[in-house]
Amino acid sequence: MAESQTSQGDVHPHPYIPRDLHLPGYVPSSLSQSNILSVFASFFLILFALTWIFSGRLKKTKVDRLLIFWWAFTGLTHLILEGYFVFTPEFFKDNTSFHLAESWKEYSKGDSRYAARDAGIVTVEILTALLEGPASLLAVYAIATGKSYSYILQFAISLGQLYGIAVYYITAILGGDNFSTNSFYYYAYFIGANVPWIVIPSIISIRCWRKIVAAFQVQSQTKKTKVR
Amino acid sequence: MAESQTSQGDVHPHPYIPRDLHLPGYVPSSLSQSNILSVFASFFLILFALTWIFSGRLKKTKVDRLLIFWWAFTGLTHLILEGYFVFTPEFFKDNTSFHLAESWKEYSKGDSRYAARDAGIVTVEILTALLEGPASLLAVYAIATGKSYSYILQFAISLGQLYGIAVYYITAILGGDNFSTNSFYYYAYFIGANVPWIVIPSIISIRCWRKIVAAFQVQSQTKKTKVR
Repeated sequence: MAESQTSQGDVHPHPYIPRDLHLPGYVPSSLSQSNILSVFASFFLILFALTWIFSGRLKKTKVDRLLIFWWAFTGLTHLILEGYFVFTPEFFKDNTSFHLAESWKEYSKGDSRYAARDAGIVTVEILTALLEGPASLLAVYAIATGKSYSYILQFAISLGQLYGIAVYYITAILGGDNFSTNSFYYYAYFIGANVPWIVIPSIISIRCWRKIVAAFQVQSQTKKTKVR
Repeated sequence: MAESQTSQGDVHPHPYIPRDLHLPGYVPSSLSQSNILSVFASFFLILFALTWIFSGRLKKTKVDRLLIFWWAFTGLTHLILEGYFVFTPEFFKDNTSFHLAESWKEYSKGDSRYAARDAGIVTVEILTALLEGPASLLAVYAIATGKSYSYILQFAISLGQLYGIAVYYITAILGGDNFSTNSFYYYAYFIGANVPWIVIPSIISIRCWRKIVAAFQVQSQTKKTKVR
C-alpha cells in the first residue's frame, strides 16, 4: 500500500515550492479549490446563523453577539482544521478525498512548510489547536454567561494567536520566504487567509485591555469612596 | 581576517552537538564557566540591592518590591543578553573575550541551536528581546507608580514568556532533542537556566488573572449598588 503510493508520488510530482521538497507517497488533490472554499463558506454562514440566533435569545449586545460568533468560529477552526493537521503528519498521502486532508493539500500551495512538517509550524499548530481551541470555546461560554473572567480570557487567547502569527511569519522570513507555489497562492493563502487572525485578535486585545484598565479605575474609585 | 578565523576554526573544532554542525570561524571560549556565572551573579545581586532600596523608598508592599526586581531583572536580561544574540549572528567568532559573546558560546553547550542560529530560536529571541524586554521595564514603571494597567501588562508579558518557552521546548523535541554537549549542560543550561521563566511567569499570570477577575467583581457589585 505505502509502496504503491510512493510510486504514485513519483508519477505525480507535488505542486509545492521548493521543488526539491521530498514528499514520498504524495497523492494529488482530488477536490477543486472552489469545492474546498465552498465548504468553508457554508461552515462560516451556518455557524454565524446558529450563534446569532442563540446569542439573540440571551439578549446580548451586538458586540457580544459578534464575539460569540468569532470565538465559536475560531475555536472550531483551531480544534477541527488545525487539530487534524497536528495529528495527521501524512495528510498529503490521503487518497479518500477527505475534506480536511484536501484543505491542507490546497493550503500547502501557499505555504509548503505544512506539507514539509516544519518544526516551527507544527509547534504553533500544537499550541493553537490544543490550548487556544478549547479556550476559545470557553470564551463563548464566558461571554454567554457573563463571567468575570471573560475579558482576561479573551485577552489571553488573542495574545496567544498574535504570538503564533508572529512566529509563523518571522520563521518564514528567516527561512527564505520561498514556500509558495506562485504569487497568487502567496497573497491568497499565506497572507490573505491569515490576516483575520492579525486584525481581529488585535482589536479584541485592545478592547479587553481598555475594559480591564477601566475596571481597575472603578475599583480604585470605590476604595477612595469607602475611605471617605 | 575572516579566512584566518576559518582556519582557526578548523584547528579548534567546536564543542557542540551535533558534531557535524558547521561553524566556520569558531573561536574557542576564553572565559571560564565560573567567570561567566560570577558576572551574572554579581549583576543579579547588585540589581536586587538597587531595586530593593528604590522600591523601599516608594513604600511598596514586599510583593510589589519583589515584582519590581523581577521585571527589572528579566527586562534587562531580555534587552542586553538576548538583544545581543539577536543582533550578533556570529558571536561564536568573537575573539575579544567579550562577556556576552562568551555567555552564548557557553550556553550553546546546553543548546547548540543558538550557535546554529536555528530559525525557531531566533524568532523567539526577536520577540523576547524587542517586545518583552522594553515591556518588562514598562512594568517596573507601572508597578512603581501604581498604574491601572499594571496587572494586564504583567499578564501580557508573562503569557508571552510562557508562549516563548513552549515554542523553545516543543521545537527542541520535534528537532530530536539532541543539542546538548552532555547531560550536565542539558540539565544545567537547557533545563535549569530556563525553569525560572516557566515558574515565575506562571505565578505572575495566575496572580494577575485573579486580581483582574476580582476587579470585575467589584465593578459589577458597584453597578448593582448604584441600581439600588
